[in-house]
Order: sequence, then structure tokens, then C-alpha cells
Amino acid sequence: MPEGAALTQMAREIAEQPAAIAQTLDTLLPQRSEITALARGRRRLLLIARGSSDNAATYGRYLAEVHAGMAGALAAPSVATLYAAKLDLSDTVTIAVSQSGATAEIVETLAWAKECGAATVAVTNVAGSPLALGADVALVTQAGPELAVPATKTYTTQVAALAVAVDALAPVPGRLDAEFAAVAAEAEQMLLPDDALDAMVDRLAGTEEVLASGRGLAFGTMLEVALKLEETCLRPVRGLSYADLKHGPIAIVDASLVTLLVAGPSGPTLPGLVDLAATVRAAGSPVLGIGGDASFRAACDLAMPGPALSELLAPLALVIPGQLLVERLARRLGLDPDAPRGLKKVTQTD
Amino acid sequence: MPEGAALTQMAREIAEQPAAIAQTLDTLLPQRSEITALARGRRRLLLIARGSSDNAATYGRYLAEVHAGMAGALAAPSVATLYAAKLDLSDTVTIAVSQSGATAEIVETLAWAKECGAATVAVTNVAGSPLALGADVALVTQAGPELAVPATKTYTTQVAALAVAVDALAPVPGRLDAEFAAVAAEAEQMLLPDDALDAMVDRLAGTEEVLASGRGLAFGTMLEVALKLEETCLRPVRGLSYADLKHGPIAIVDASLVTLLVAGPSGPTLPGLVDLAATVRAAGSPVLGIGGDASFRAACDLAMPGPALSELLAPLALVIPGQLLVERLARRLGLDPDAPRGLKKVTQTD
Repeated sequence: MPEGAALTQMAREIAEQPAAIAQTLDTLLPQRSEITALARGRRRLLLIARGSSDNAATYGRYLAEVHAGMAGALAAPSVATLYAAKLDLSDTVTIAVSQSGATAEIVETLAWAKECGAATVAVTNVAGSPLALGADVALVTQAGPELAVPATKTYTTQVAALAVAVDALAPVPGRLDAEFAAVAAEAEQMLLPDDALDAMVDRLAGTEEVLASGRGLAFGTMLEVALKLEETCLRPVRGLSYADLKHGPIAIVDASLVTLLVAGPSGPTLPGLVDLAATVRAAGSPVLGIGGDASFRAACDLAMPGPALSELLAPLALVIPGQLLVERLARRLGLDPDAPRGLKKVTQTD
Repeated sequence: MPEGAALTQMAREIAEQPAAIAQTLDTLLPQRSEITALARGRRRLLLIARGSSDNAATYGRYLAEVHAGMAGALAAPSVATLYAAKLDLSDTVTIAVSQSGATAEIVETLAWAKECGAATVAVTNVAGSPLALGADVALVTQAGPELAVPATKTYTTQVAALAVAVDALAPVPGRLDAEFAAVAAEAEQMLLPDDALDAMVDRLAGTEEVLASGRGLAFGTMLEVALKLEETCLRPVRGLSYADLKHGPIAIVDASLVTLLVAGPSGPTLPGLVDLAATVRAAGSPVLGIGGDASFRAACDLAMPGPALSELLAPLALVIPGQLLVERLARRLGLDPDAPRGLKKVTQTD
């Protein structure tokens, strides 16, 4: 679909996010007490996911450690589905994340975790799905049907569901409630196209390769923007944490790469990302930024602001400028953002 | 250094690995009882590492779950060093891995884990380093000084040290001892250049981009070969698990990419990798293989065998054909494998 034609399905679904997030939070916040009760006496969080859901889970892991003080980890599904390892998860709450609730690998890994003694939570967009039926508590996101192949509103509502679930694991749940109430309006703000958007699309259209980086609570958001650029725009993207990048691959940064940095609005990881923007620019790579503060955006060649939320909840809306970038870039490249090459909506892995 | 000239330092250090692995195993296997005692009553493993050490730690995590039945995770260092989260790690053994033992981020994260209640183990090549001094038990690898910037013998000896440490966490340590005794001879076999090596170098020299994939116990080996290709040969490489690849980025596989698959000799992940080789070849990408079995290698365009070790210990030597490939490719590309652009031996991240 060319630029200027009727909205793509992906664009429509991006625009549905403020309402989808609001409805998801309204539905799930009252379920927090179920999660708190389920987790009583358990002190570990294990997240089970693939693809976009894995990027949401990465946020959940950081939030669990930083906000709830609970050690978290992402499962290696092959340990369950192929190696059939027997682990003692009697101290663990596990949250499996799958839009469809039907990806066999995720359903099987959740069943394995339950056999290993874990208390189980499902985050899925489909009530009554195998994943929802297999869990002790099902958190059903309220994204509605998503028709475009790239996950947008199902991703942000997963992130919202994980924020609710992790807040239920905090020593004192509810401290984020005033901010939860502000998320939908901030997501709405993100839909207003920023002046820098078209210029950023131009830069990405003119490169064969993108390097993406971020750190901490916004790391998962960066991975999600990177995955969408790769899948939807067929741009090879390497997504690396700030620290991993400095630990070696920074050697390959030069003018042939465009660098995309995604940052939360504040917090202890931000100064390092401002420095990274300067380092990468000095190596000749144009730097595009999403989020951060004014000093971060000033350190980038081009940047779009993120939502006016704390670092803890910014990831519920911070991905939206990245989604707009991906949708517009796909059209600029003559690709159909609604049906990227080689992708299906539900992926079965084993 | 052109091909045919005197050996590079990297080539010399690759060749020193059989002796370095043997000496490391001889030194560390008697320390197993210290680890077993330290871990008594603890049922979680947390690994702390960056860069090549992180790839070794990835192997350690799979081995802990598959061989020792102990749930493992890789730490997110920013949670410690920047967010200063307070977690309860009183059920945890943590292993920090750093060649120099002097990377501030790793030293600080280990100190944080100790404050959080973890029992602490250091894997480092430098006795008396800050990391060794900060840990309850120090496992000092016997690689000797490594002068080339790309880690080779310090990586394989880290992998060996992690195999020893994880075996100490198993319900019955010592079951791998006969195989530990065979590792050095198998590493020696890996030094004999395979017929396919030069043809694989040719293929990699002729591409701008490499996709690397693997799964399970050999996943960390694949990540390490990918990192070395990127840092030393300046080839952009994306390293993705088999399942993550099938979950989306397979869309970008075409004839412009060379695919590199790294597989263990047997085990439940191997059939999926044989299938993946066929899928990727069908999409037009040349497939290079390291390891696997005969059917795996037959499914690749070009392949080199791995060591005749079980899936559990193959990663102690499986990386060697990949190191030979990287060293030779760097020279073919007119690069100096001993001093890749932009890299220093000890990286400080914060």
C-alpha cells in the first residue's frame, strides 16, 4: 500500500492502542490480588515466551527485579520441550506470554513448569485458549482481534499485563496505580506524528543495516522495535545492550550503519546512553533516538520523545513511536506492513 | 599478516588449547568438592558475565538445567550496578566469569550478589585478581597469558571451568569424569584443518552478512563463533536461536546471506537443526555447518565435524573449528586477527 492511500491495518491497530491498553488495565488491575495470593511464599519469577512476547517478557524481568525486588529469569524452552529437564520450581511463579495462547512450545513449557512445582500465570489475548486453560490464573489482554501480522496492540497490552502482574509481586502492590491511570492518555500522545518521523524514515530507507541499542527497563522495547524493523521492513538489525555493544561489536560501527537508540525518560541507564550516542556519532554512524530526556535527544541526530511516564511504566507506550516508524518505513520501501514476507500470525516452534 | 606468513598470535593460542584445557581440568577437578560444599542447600545458579564470557555462561546455564537439574539464569548486571536492586539470593550460587578478573562491572555485580546472600564463585584466568579475591571460591583457569585480542584459549578454559563447577552442583558429581579425561585429545583433533575449511572461508569472504543459529547446549558456542566473526572479521552477524529464528527473522533469509549453523554431536535439538539447514537452503542461503552428526553435515553445503564428545561436554572443543575459520578469514580479508579494529583486551563497562 503506497503512502497516502487508505490506512493500513497495522496503522489502524497502532491507533487502537490507547483504548486497548486502558481496557486491559481496567480488566486486569482487579485481578492483582489473585496473583498476589498465588505468589505467596514464592520468590522467583520465570517468564516463558518467544518473539515479540519475549521482548515483553524481558521488560517483565527487569521490572520484577527493579520494582518488585524479585529475581527473574527467562526460560530456555528447549530445556523443557526437548531436554525434559526436571527442575525444582516450587519457589517460582511462572508467567507464560503468548498472544494466541496456542503456540505449542509455550503451552508445553508452561505445563512443564507446573509439573516442576511452579505456580502458573498466562498472559494471552485469547480467553479459553490452551495457555489460558492450563494456567492457575489467566490474565486476558483486551486487544481484540489483531489482523495485521506485526504485533502492535497485542504487544503493548502484554506489556501492560506484565506490569500489573509484577506490581502484584511487589512488597506493597498499588504504588503505581496513579501512573497506571495516566498510561492511556500518554499512549494517545504518542500517536501524534512527531516532526522527526519522516526524516527518521528517510535515514532508515537509505541504509542496508541498523544497529539498535538500549539498556535496563527500556531494553525490551528496543528489542521489539528492532524485531519489527527486521520482520516488517526486512532491514537486518542487530539489537544489543549498551554494555554488550561496548564489549566488542562497537568495532563494526561506522558510517555504513544507522544506529537506533531507545531510552526511558530518566533513570540510571540514561547517562550511559547519552554517552553512547556521542561515541557512535563520533564513529560516523547517524544516530536516531526514541524516548530519553532532552539531553539524550540533543545527543542524537534525529529523535522522537517518549511518553511522560516514569521509567517503570514508560515501556507501556514507548514502543509506539517505533511502531509508527516501522509502518511508515515499510510503505516507503514498497512493502506491505500488514503481511510481511514469510511470516504467519501464529508461529509453531518445537 | 598475509596467508602463508608466520603464524599469527591468535593461531598460536588456538593451538595451545589442548594443553590449556588439560591443565585447567587437572587443576580444577580437585576443587569440585569445594563447590559442592559451598552450594549445599542452595538450588539456584546465577551467572554473571559479558562478551565471550557471557557465551561461556550461556553454556553453563544449559548444562546446569540439563545435567545438574538446577535452575539457572544470566544476571542483568545493570540491575546490580545501576539500579542497585535488593534481591534475596540466599538460595543461590553465583558464578562470575571474567578472563582478567578486573572488569569493574563484573566485580561489582559479584559483590552485589554476595550482599544479596549468594554464595560466590569466580572463574578467571588471573589468580589474585579482584574477582578472584572477592569470591568464596576462585576457579583459576590455566590458559596462561593471552596476547591476541580475540579470546580463544581463555574462552575454552572458561567453558571447561564451568563444566567442572556445574558438575559439582549435580546430584552425583563425577559422572562425566571419564569424558573429561578425553577432552584434550579431542581438542587436539580439532586443530587438524578440515578439507572444508578453505571453502568455508571462501564463502564467508564473499558475503557481507552472516546469520548464525544453534540451540540448546551448543547455543553458547554458536554465539561465540558469531561474536568472533563480528569482532575479528568485521562481518555483521546475527546470532539467533533456532526457535527465535523460526519465530520471525527467517523472513529475511535469502541468497544474500550466508548461514552458519553450530550443532552438538547428538541430542534432542539436532533433528530441528537438520530441518533448519534444509529450510534455509531452500530459501537460497548457503549453509555452513560446524559439528552435528553425519546427517547434519549432509544437510549443509559445507561442514566441519566437531569433537567426538557427548553433547554435554562437546562445547569444550566445538568452538575450535570456528576459531580456525575466523583466524583464516581475517587474514583472507587483509585484517590482523591479533588486533581487531576498536577492541581492547579488557573492556570496562559500567
